Amino acid sequence: MEKFLSVNDVQDLNEIVKSALSIKANPEAYGDVGKNKMLGLLFFNPSLRTRLSTQRAARHLGMDVMVMNIDKDGWKIETEDGVIMDGDKAEHLKDAAAVISQYCDIIGVRSFPNLQDKEEDYADGIMKDFVKYAHVPIVSLESATRHPLQSLADLVTIRENSDKPKKKVVLTWAPHPRALPQAVPNSFAEWMNAADDVELVITAPEGYELDPEFVGEATFTTDQDEALKDADFVYAKNWSSTTEYGKVVCKDNSWQVTEEKMALTNNGKFMHCLPIRRNVVASDGVLDSDNSLIIEEANNRTFAAAAVLKAILETE
Amino acid sequence: MEKFLSVNDVQDLNEIVKSALSIKANPEAYGDVGKNKMLGLLFFNPSLRTRLSTQRAARHLGMDVMVMNIDKDGWKIETEDGVIMDGDKAEHLKDAAAVISQYCDIIGVRSFPNLQDKEEDYADGIMKDFVKYAHVPIVSLESATRHPLQSLADLVTIRENSDKPKKKVVLTWAPHPRALPQAVPNSFAEWMNAADDVELVITAPEGYELDPEFVGEATFTTDQDEALKDADFVYAKNWSSTTEYGKVVCKDNSWQVTEEKMALTNNGKFMHCLPIRRNVVASDGVLDSDNSLIIEEANNRTFAAAAVLKAILETE
Amino acid sequence: MEKFLSVNDVQDLNEIVKSALSIKANPEAYGDVGKNKMLGLLFFNPSLRTRLSTQRAARHLGMDVMVMNIDKDGWKIETEDGVIMDGDKAEHLKDAAAVISQYCDIIGVRSFPNLQDKEEDYADGIMKDFVKYAHVPIVSLESATRHPLQSLADLVTIRENSDKPKKKVVLTWAPHPRALPQAVPNSFAEWMNAADDVELVITAPEGYELDPEFVGEATFTTDQDEALKDADFVYAKNWSSTTEYGKVVCKDNSWQVTEEKMALTNNGKFMHCLPIRRNVVASDGVLDSDNSLIIEEANNRTFAAAAVLKAILETE
Repeated sequence: MEKFLSVNDVQDLNEIVKSALSIKANPEAYGDVGKNKMLGLLFFNPSLRTRLSTQRAARHLGMDVMVMNIDKDGWKIETEDGVIMDGDKAEHLKDAAAVISQYCDIIGVRSFPNLQDKEEDYADGIMKDFVKYAHVPIVSLESATRHPLQSLADLVTIRENSDKPKKKVVLTWAPHPRALPQAVPNSFAEWMNAADDVELVITAPEGYELDPEFVGEATFTTDQDEALKDADFVYAKNWSSTTEYGKVVCKDNSWQVTEEKMALTNNGKFMHCLPIRRNVVASDGVLDSDNSLIIEEANNRTFAAAAVLKAILETE
Repeated sequence: MEKFLSVNDVQDLNEIVKSALSIKANPEAYGDVGKNKMLGLLFFNPSLRTRLSTQRAARHLGMDVMVMNIDKDGWKIETEDGVIMDGDKAEHLKDAAAVISQYCDIIGVRSFPNLQDKEEDYADGIMKDFVKYAHVPIVSLESATRHPLQSLADLVTIRENSDKPKKKVVLTWAPHPRALPQAVPNSFAEWMNAADDVELVITAPEGYELDPEFVGEATFTTDQDEALKDADFVYAKNWSSTTEYGKVVCKDNSWQVTEEKMALTNNGKFMHCLPIRRNVVASDGVLDSDNSLIIEEANNRTFAAAAVLKAILETE
Repeated sequence: MEKFLSVNDVQDLNEIVKSALSIKANPEAYGDVGKNKMLGLLFFNPSLRTRLSTQRAARHLGMDVMVMNIDKDGWKIETEDGVIMDGDKAEHLKDAAAVISQYCDIIGVRSFPNLQDKEEDYADGIMKDFVKYAHVPIVSLESATRHPLQSLADLVTIRENSDKPKKKVVLTWAPHPRALPQAVPNSFAEWMNAADDVELVITAPEGYELDPEFVGEATFTTDQDEALKDADFVYAKNWSSTTEYGKVVCKDNSWQVTEEKMALTNNGKFMHCLPIRRNVVASDGVLDSDNSLIIEEANNRTFAAAAVLKAILETE
C-alpha cells in the first residue's frame, strides 16, 4: 500500500481486516516489521484516540514515533500556491511536507475541514498536498472528507460481532450542539459499500443527505424508525448540514438514539466513533448497554492502524 | 500493586524504598521488566519533574511511554454522571478512561484541585473515576489531594541522608503569592506517619491546619521556631488556607525558611518538592547551602516512579 | 565534545562534517552509541525541523528522547539571580536546569532572543545558565545569538555540493515582514569563517551589518549585485536591523533573491535554513529550481545533529 487516504487505497479489503484481527490476536508477533523506521504524526487538530492508538500501533510493529501538534509546536502553514507570503503564515506546506518526509518513513496527517466553503473542504487540499510533496507514504488521520482508520476499525468491529453473510448496518444522523465535519459518515458509508457482507441504510433529516459519491448504492431515508427496523448494527454520528454547509439546521432531539429506538432493531449493536455527547447523540442507556460496542470499537483503532502501517512497511 | 494513589496502596513501605534505591544503584538492571508495555501519561495540568522523571523511569524499565496534555491535545472532559452533554465538554471521562486503558498497560494521571469547593476537590473525582472506568492500573501523578510519587521520593531522600532510628522531620508552611493545592503536604504527612523512622511535626499559621485524616499522630503547632528545634529535616511547602479554602489568608514573610531558621535545627537538611519561589518560600542561602537536598530529591523522583511501575508490572 | 553552543566547541571541523556524512551514508551503523541514554529537548520557542530532525538523529544512535515545550507544558522560568520570586515565574532556571540534567544524559535547548535589548540578548543568558547549572552536556537548538546545528548542516550541504578548494559563499540579507533573530546569519558567518574551503561575502542594507565578532575576516558590502557575482552558493536570510536592534528598517523588495539575481552567480546553488516566506525572501522560481538545496539542507539537519550527539556520547 502506497498511501492510506480512503478505501480505494486498499487492494484487498478482506485481507486488511484479517491482518488487523491477526495483530489483535498477537500484538507482539510483528515487532520487527517497523524496526529502525520512523512514523511522524502531524496534528492540525485535536485528537485523543487517533493520537494514542496510532502510536501504540506503531510500537507494536517496533516502529518509532514522533508526534507534533504542527500549528502549536511550530507555526501557521501556507497552502496556496504562488502567493507572496507576507501575512501570518511562516512556511509553505510544500516545503514542510518535503522536509518532514526526510525525517520520517511514514507520515500521518490530521486536518479537519473549515466548514466554511464546501468546495474548498472537499478538495482536501492539505492531505493531497502532503501526498504530492512528501517523498514517503501518507496516512490520513482524518481529513476534511474521510476518516479511513476509523472506518477500517469499524469494519473490523462489525465482522468481530456478526458472521451473518449480509448484515444490515444503519448509519443514523444524531443531534449535536455544534456543526461537525462529514468525514466520519462519508468514510463509513464508503467502507460499508465496499464490504461484501454489509447492506447499508443511511438515515438523516432533510438537508443532511450525504454526497452521492459516498452514499453510492446505499438506501437513504429521512424516516429513522423505518431505517432502524431489523438493523444488526446502528452507527450513530452527527454531521453538519449538507444543503446549508457547515451549519446546524436540525436540533430535533427525537433523532437521539435511545433504548426505545434500539428496540426497533434486530437486537442491534450500537456503534459510535467517539468522542460522544452522552444524552445528546445517544442516551446513557444505549451507551452503557451490553449491545454497545463503542469501547471495543475504539480498541480496534490500534489494530486497524497497525494493519495499515504494516501493509505500507511491507510495500516499501 | 494494583494502583498507586496513596501510601495505602503500598503493601510494604520499606520494600518499595529499597526497590527505588536498588534501581538508583543500577538503573539498567531492570530493562526488561516493562518490555512491550505502554505507559500513558495524561496531564490535565502543567508538569516538569513528574513529566520527565516518570518518562525516564519507564525507559529504565524498557517500557514505552505516550504523553498527552489531555485538555490541550484533545478536548474538555465531562466528569458529571448522567448529564446532557450539550455544553463545551466533548467527551465523558468514563469513555475516555475506558478507551485509553486499551492503549496502555498503566495510566498515569495528573489532575489538580480547582480550589473553589473543598468537598468537591477532596472527593478526588477524576482520579477515582479513572480507577473505576479504566481496565488497567492507575498511577497518580498528583491528584487534588495527594502526590504520592513525590512523597515516596521524599522518603527515599530522607533515608539516604540519615540512618537515625527516629528522625525529626518538620513540615513547615511557607509564604507564596498564589493559592496552592494541599496535595503535597497532605501526602507528605501521610507518608511520614506511615514510616517507622520518622517523628513528624507540622507547623503552619492559624487557618492552615491540614485535615486530621492527613495529620494523623503528628504534632501540630503554629510556632514555627519551636517546631524547627532539633529538626533533622525541614520540609517547606506552601498550601492554601484550609479554613478559607483556596484562599491566601497569610502573607507573613516571617514564615520564609531562612538561614536563621535553619540554625534552630539539628544541622537539619532542607527539602522542597519544587518548583520553588526563591526568596519567598525559602532564601537563596538555604536553597544553595550544603544542607539543601532539593536537587537530589528531584533526582529520586525517577527511582520512586520506577519502583512503583516495577511493582505494578510485577503484579499484573 | 562537552557542549555544542558554537563552532568553538568543535575540535576538528573537518572531522565532524565527515562524521555527519558517514552517518548519512549508513544511518543504522551507529545504533548502539546512545543505548540507554536519554536526550531531553527543551523548547522555549516553536520548532519544526530542529524538533523532528534532532529526535530522528537521536533514534539513529539508539538514544531515547523526551520533548518538552517548557513554557507551555510547564510554567514560566525565572532567569534573574537573587530576585524575590513573587511574580508570575514559578521556577528558577538554576533549579530547572539542575533537575532536568538528572533525567537526561544530554539536554538540547532552544531559546530565542526577545529582540528588545541587544545586550541582554547577546549575553545568551538562558543557554549559558543551562551550561552552568546542568550537570550534563548542553546542545544549542538555537540560542539568542547562534544556531550551530543549522550551520553544521549548512557546511555539510556545501561540501556535498562542491569540491572546489575555495568556494565563494554569499550570505545575503533578504526582506521579511517581521523582525527576526540574528542567530542564523551570525552562526553561518562564524562557521563559514572557520571552514578552510570557503570565501565568505556578506551583503545587507545599511543598518544591517552583523557584529564584528561574527563577520570576522569576511567581506561586507551593501551592494548585493556585486556580492553575488561568481558566487558558488547563495545563502539568503532575513535578520532584524542591527543599528535599530529588533526593528524592521528596510522593506526594500529589490533584496529578494530572484532568478535574475541568481543569474549573476557562477551557476550558484541556493540555500536557506527554512521556514522561508516564498516570494518575499526568495521567489518560487529560485526555490523550486534545480539549483535550490533547501530540502537537502533540511535533510542534513538529521545527520548534523547525529554527528554532534555522537561526538558528545563518545566523550562522556
